[in-house]
This record gives sequence, structure tokens and C-alpha cells, in this order.
Amino acid sequence: MFADFTRALVLLVVAVPAWAGLPIQHWETANGARVLFVEAHSLPMVDVRVSFDAGSARDGARHGLASLTSTLLDQGTGERDAQAVAEAFENVGAHFGASVSQDAVTLSLRSLVDAARLQPALDTFTAVMAQPRLADEDFSRERERVLLGLRAAEQQPGEVARRAFYKALYGDHPYAFQPDGEAEALQGMTVADVRAFHQRHYVAASMVIVLVGDLSREQAGRIAEGLASAVPRGEPLSPLPPVAELAEGKTVHIPFPSTQATILAGQVGMARIDKDYFPLYVGNHVLGGSGFSSRLVEEIREKRGLAYSVYSYLMPMAVPGPFLMGMQTKLDQAEQAEGLLRGNLARFVEEGPSAAELEHAQKNIIGGFPLRLDSNREIADWLSILGIYRLPLDFLDRYPGQVKAATPETVRAAWQRRIHPDKIVMVIVGGPQQ
Amino acid sequence: MFADFTRALVLLVVAVPAWAGLPIQHWETANGARVLFVEAHSLPMVDVRVSFDAGSARDGARHGLASLTSTLLDQGTGERDAQAVAEAFENVGAHFGASVSQDAVTLSLRSLVDAARLQPALDTFTAVMAQPRLADEDFSRERERVLLGLRAAEQQPGEVARRAFYKALYGDHPYAFQPDGEAEALQGMTVADVRAFHQRHYVAASMVIVLVGDLSREQAGRIAEGLASAVPRGEPLSPLPPVAELAEGKTVHIPFPSTQATILAGQVGMARIDKDYFPLYVGNHVLGGSGFSSRLVEEIREKRGLAYSVYSYLMPMAVPGPFLMGMQTKLDQAEQAEGLLRGNLARFVEEGPSAAELEHAQKNIIGGFPLRLDSNREIADWLSILGIYRLPLDFLDRYPGQVKAATPETVRAAWQRRIHPDKIVMVIVGGPQQ
Repeated sequence: MFADFTRALVLLVVAVPAWAGLPIQHWETANGARVLFVEAHSLPMVDVRVSFDAGSARDGARHGLASLTSTLLDQGTGERDAQAVAEAFENVGAHFGASVSQDAVTLSLRSLVDAARLQPALDTFTAVMAQPRLADEDFSRERERVLLGLRAAEQQPGEVARRAFYKALYGDHPYAFQPDGEAEALQGMTVADVRAFHQRHYVAASMVIVLVGDLSREQAGRIAEGLASAVPRGEPLSPLPPVAELAEGKTVHIPFPSTQATILAGQVGMARIDKDYFPLYVGNHVLGGSGFSSRLVEEIREKRGLAYSVYSYLMPMAVPGPFLMGMQTKLDQAEQAEGLLRGNLARFVEEGPSAAELEHAQKNIIGGFPLRLDSNREIADWLSILGIYRLPLDFLDRYPGQVKAATPETVRAAWQRRIHPDKIVMVIVGGPQQ
Repeated sequence: MFADFTRALVLLVVAVPAWAGLPIQHWETANGARVLFVEAHSLPMVDVRVSFDAGSARDGARHGLASLTSTLLDQGTGERDAQAVAEAFENVGAHFGASVSQDAVTLSLRSLVDAARLQPALDTFTAVMAQPRLADEDFSRERERVLLGLRAAEQQPGEVARRAFYKALYGDHPYAFQPDGEAEALQGMTVADVRAFHQRHYVAASMVIVLVGDLSREQAGRIAEGLASAVPRGEPLSPLPPVAELAEGKTVHIPFPSTQATILAGQVGMARIDKDYFPLYVGNHVLGGSGFSSRLVEEIREKRGLAYSVYSYLMPMAVPGPFLMGMQTKLDQAEQAEGLLRGNLARFVEEGPSAAELEHAQKNIIGGFPLRLDSNREIADWLSILGIYRLPLDFLDRYPGQVKAATPETVRAAWQRRIHPDKIVMVIVGGPQQ
């Protein structure tokens, strides 16, 4: 561990120039799409990310619609089927991807930048984004794939726990549901729903375009205009509803024929834009976010051997995402484990981290940070986050300073403001019907 | 469906020139590694595959050793840790991957070919392949990751069924075990085992180097020599033991607290080099290998609605891999489903395909084949298969002709020779203890 730290600090010194003052250029296209661009000439490539406010929080009652829509994009455009679309990318050495979260759908492209390859890659990307064929047969096939996945998930205690935890935490808020959706909602869906969702949500007004690579500002401008002008201007969506704090804790026990109990415990945590972001984040590193050296690992794994893996994290989202502690243990140790999760959280919120723990966490985070920002792909991923959540453009530059600014007092105060150990949602999957 | 066929046939005509007579160059390096090379100048990239006879069939009693070894390769070389290795690839826009099967480990690299990027990418690739640091801490961490995966697999009925099926079919043959291994064997393993496995098995004598891309023959020769000379010459391994045919069928029922029964049924099937390869393969397309239009789908899904998905496949391996039919259905329909799998197989083996079914399958396979061979990546993947299994270099050129040559009689005869419906291994996971 010590060797890792030394190395991380050395790399920090070396690597800082690569991202301190990351030169992000930012503008809007004619129809209102936001663009973030970093010129990077070390590779003859460009990484493109296009995000829309079209994540599963926009599903309404059609749980799974946003995800299914994103899956269908590269299944065909015009006369081309899925195979032909894949070939069109592959023929110019380009790579396409799509991902969806509660908050956004993000389409990504990595392409060579010479004109003979970049333009065909962008043409295919644009068609996939803006004119997917959304054919009935593709819809049926992909929906079936999702349904099969949901049935498989029902038989995995970790998945069962995760779904139950989000439902317990979020009630009737859109975050109560996972992006892949719900079987019943999917069964009632039609390709017309997908078409309407695509038309309504893939619009310039909620579009974030990220470009990182071997382009001039002028080229980047032309590319961004081309992408944005392929979709309707549209309207920005209303913000998501606020998340209600739970009035009291609750425990959900789900019988499951496993030899292990899967335990998830937590509360509503923090949003991406949250003044307590850094003290909460750094504090969690001490509690259960740092892998081998966290308190939860020390108390539950090292001292008592109750679990292979125990962790905690805060998932920052558009409105507060979950704070979550998780572990698996033997069924007959579940009660003990539950008590230890509760007890360690209560102690941490009451006392905060020690000065030594905090310093350890800060060094670890700051040392690791530039390592996560030294490739175009990683920079592009971060720029998408900045764009989607409208974080300040100097967020990454100020990151190490903000981490360093945390003190045991600010961390404790933030955790006491936000986390209430007497109102924990506890989900335990495993054991017989009680 | 009809439209798809038309399209496939049209593409066949158009696409044939792209692969008919695929110009594979083939030679051996000074220390005995075999090289397959296809010059392809349409992209300024090269796809590299390096395979060794170091798959899980070489695990011996240390089930999981080959897979763990392959996982550890890019976790560090010399002074570089996993992150630094990932950066070294990413900094030159290169992509590294490693995969392991029962028969082989395959390391892959996609890199730009300009000198400033290709050489650093190859240097890192060579270090990962030949001088991984195989550190104790990386070993412990990765082993734990595998163990967690195995514990998760225990709770997935599909995984439970697959493991039980291979064990029932292969007895004490190395194929009885999945590449990720067995918990007990992993717990007894040390980093010294990994080092010894790497040293013994990553050798030129069993090495296949595949290069597809924008290289001259001379450049390809230099690259292959560089790769091969980084590992010891070594000795080729003895062939795997033959697979015994089962004297009689058996049924394995594994209680599992799921609402669905997972059913796998089958026998030992065929090897990659097998004179019955094509009639078996084409026949399976009719039985259960073609997705929506297969007999099993028609009988089990369409007519009776017993399952979302039902399929069959033959997995060609170094020595005969499995023939496998699979489905999930409701617990109370398991018996009916089992009967239908048995009955349809028996009827198919007895009668063979109709002329119309066979023609449909042939068109489907031949139409789809060039589509799977039109990117450098796919060509590289196929060349690895040719190399690992020592298939004739004109295998791909002769593929459509071999498919077309199948007749209802040759298919029926091959299935009757190889598949014996009275000796089926049936694994059913689900339902209470009986």
C-alpha cells in the first residue's frame, strides 16, 4: 500500500500538467446544443460523446423505454440492418457505443480523423442517433432480450436486492426503477412508444456534445453543428421531481434460496451539484469507498471474516442518488452483519474520520485522480458528466483542492447534515420465508 | 424473413470477392511459432492475436489456473502496475484484450500502424505477454475477484446447470471444468503456480501469431519474430486425452429455489477438425441453431409457448466439445419440456431435415457467412481459430461449398453416427429437493 501511495504522489507531480487547467472550450450550436471540446493532438483520433436528457428517469410509467430506445439505435437506419450498421463503423475503424443511466443516454464514437474515415463514421453515427429505423422486428427481438435479462436478474440475489433497495428508497420517484425496466411495462410497450420517446427526447435543447481529439476548433464547430442540426431543436425537459427524505427507517426482508444473505443498507445521498459533495465523498472513502483500507473492510472482513467484500458508495445523480453500503455474508451471520453496518455508520457519522484517516483518503483520492484523466476517453467521459450535470467547467481543475480542503470537522458536519443512521433502509435478500 | 434472405443473397454476390480466396500468408518464426498474416491496407491499423495452448484444459488439478494467469498478464510488468499498463496502451490509441477458453488463451491488440504508435504498443504487448510481473498482491486481488464471481455463479441457475452439464458429460476429462475454475482449487493456489504455468505454457512451440492489417510482409515478419523471440521456445504439449462416449444417458436434477426450471440436454458433439463438421453444423441450424425459424423454437415456443428461448448448438473444440440443447420453462412444465427436447431430437436424428429445411438453413448460413468476415477483427478471429486448431488455410474459402454440399441424407447420416438420443445427458436445475 505504501509503495502505491508513493507512486501515486510521484505521478501526481508528473501528471498534473496534463490536466491542471484542462483547456475546455465551450459553446452552443445554432439550435441550442451545448458543446465541450478539448483539442488533443497526440493521437490521430477523436472521441465523441453525445448525451441527451433521455435516461430512464424519463420513462414515465413505461419502465425500460429509455433503455430499449438506446439499444435500438444501432439496430438499423434506412435500408441498413444492425449488421450493416456495424460494418459501416468497422469499415472505417470506428467504434460505436451507447449507454443509458437514470439521468441520460450517451452515444459514443471513437474514429480516426483523416477525412476519408471521419466523415463516413460521423455520417453513420448521425444516422444512428437521429434516424434509427426503429423497426418492429428489431423492437420485438430487443425487448425479448431485455425480458430474458430481467428473468435472469430475478434469480440473482444481488439484483433482487438492488431493485428492492431503490424501490424502498425512492417510492414513487422515477429513480425507484432500474434503467432496464420492468417486465410488465415492457410487455405493454409498442414500437410506437419507442418512436415517440426518441422524437420527444433526442433533441438539441437537451443535447450535450463532447469532442476530444485531433481536431481544430473550426473542425469541432462544423462537426458539432452537423450533429446538432440532425435532431429537432425541441424543448428542455422539466427538472426531475425532488426526492423526499424518508420519515423513518425500514427493513425489507426478501426470502431467497441462497446460502448467502445479500445486504444493502443506505439512504438518499447526494446530487452531482451539491455543496457537500466533497466532504461526503472524501468521508465515504474512509468509511467504505477505498477498498482494502476502509473502516467497513477492517471491521467486517479483517477483524471478523464475515464477508469477502464490503463497501459503501455515494452515487451522485441529477437529484440526490443513493448512499449505499453493501455486503454478502452467510445466512446465519446476517443479523450480526446488519448490526455492524448500522453500528459503524452511526459511529462514523457521530465521530467523523480521524485526522490520519482523512489524510490517507485525501492522498489516495488526489493521487489517483490524474491517473483517471490521462486518456482522451477518460477526459471525454468526464466532459460528458460536466455537460449533463452543468457542473462548472473548472470542476476538474478545482477537484484536488476541494478534496484537500476537507477537514475532519467539515466531513463530520456534512455527514451529520445528510446521513441519519436512525433512518436506514435495510434490504436483506436470503433465507426462508419468515 | 424473406426480405432478409434476399438481402443476404444479394450481399453474398457482392461480398464474395472480399473473402473468397482470402490471401492468408503463413510461415514459422525462427523458434517455431506459427504465423498467419493477411495484408489489409484499407485502415491504418493492425489487429494482432497471439494464442497459446494454455487454456483451462491445461489446468491439471488447479482448476482456474489458466484463466487466472491470463487475467494477471496486464496487471503489471516490471515497474508498471495495472493502471500504468492500461495507460501505455491508451496513450498510443491501442486496445489490449485477453480471453481464455478450454483450448487456448488469446491475447489481442489493435494498434495504429504509424511507427510512433505501433512500436510502443507492441513493446507493451510483448511485456504483458512475456514478462508480466505476476505479483502476489495482484494474484490475491484477482483470485478474490474470481472467487466472488464463482459465488455469484452458484446463485444463477443457468451457471449451475452449465457446470453440472459439463461435469456429467466429461467425467474426468479436463473439459469437465469451466475456465474460471473451482473455488477449492483456487483457494489452494499460489502465485508460484501462476508463474510456473506461465513459464511452461507461454512458449513459441505452441504459439500462433495472427496479423491482419496495414503491414507489408516484411513488417509482419519482423513483428512476428519480435513477439516469438520474447518467449522461450518450449515444447509442444501432448494432445488432450480423447473423450469417452457415455455408455448410457443420465438425468441430473439439482434443486434450486427458482420459479423457472433451467434445462440443458445433450451429448458429446464434434471437434473442430471433424469430417462430419459441416453436416452436423448445417443440421443443427435446422434443429435449434437458427434462432426464430428452428424446429425447437417452432415446437416449444411457437406452438406451445413453453419458453421464451430455446436453442441448440455444437461447440467445436480441440477434442469433441458438447452438443447442447437448452431452455428455461416454468417448473410445472419442466417434464413436458424435457419430453419435447428428447422427442424432437429423436425425430430429427431419425428423419433428418427435409429438403426445404435444409435449403433454408444453407441459404441462411451461406448468406450470413461473408457478413461475418468483412472486418479485420473478424478475419483475425477466424485466423486464430485456423491456427489454434490447425485447420487447412483454405477452410474459409471452402466453407460455402461445404455447406452447400450437405444433403438431407448426409446430414441424417452424420447425426445418426454421432448423436444417440437414447444416451442423452439431461440437467434440470430448479424445483424442491426430491
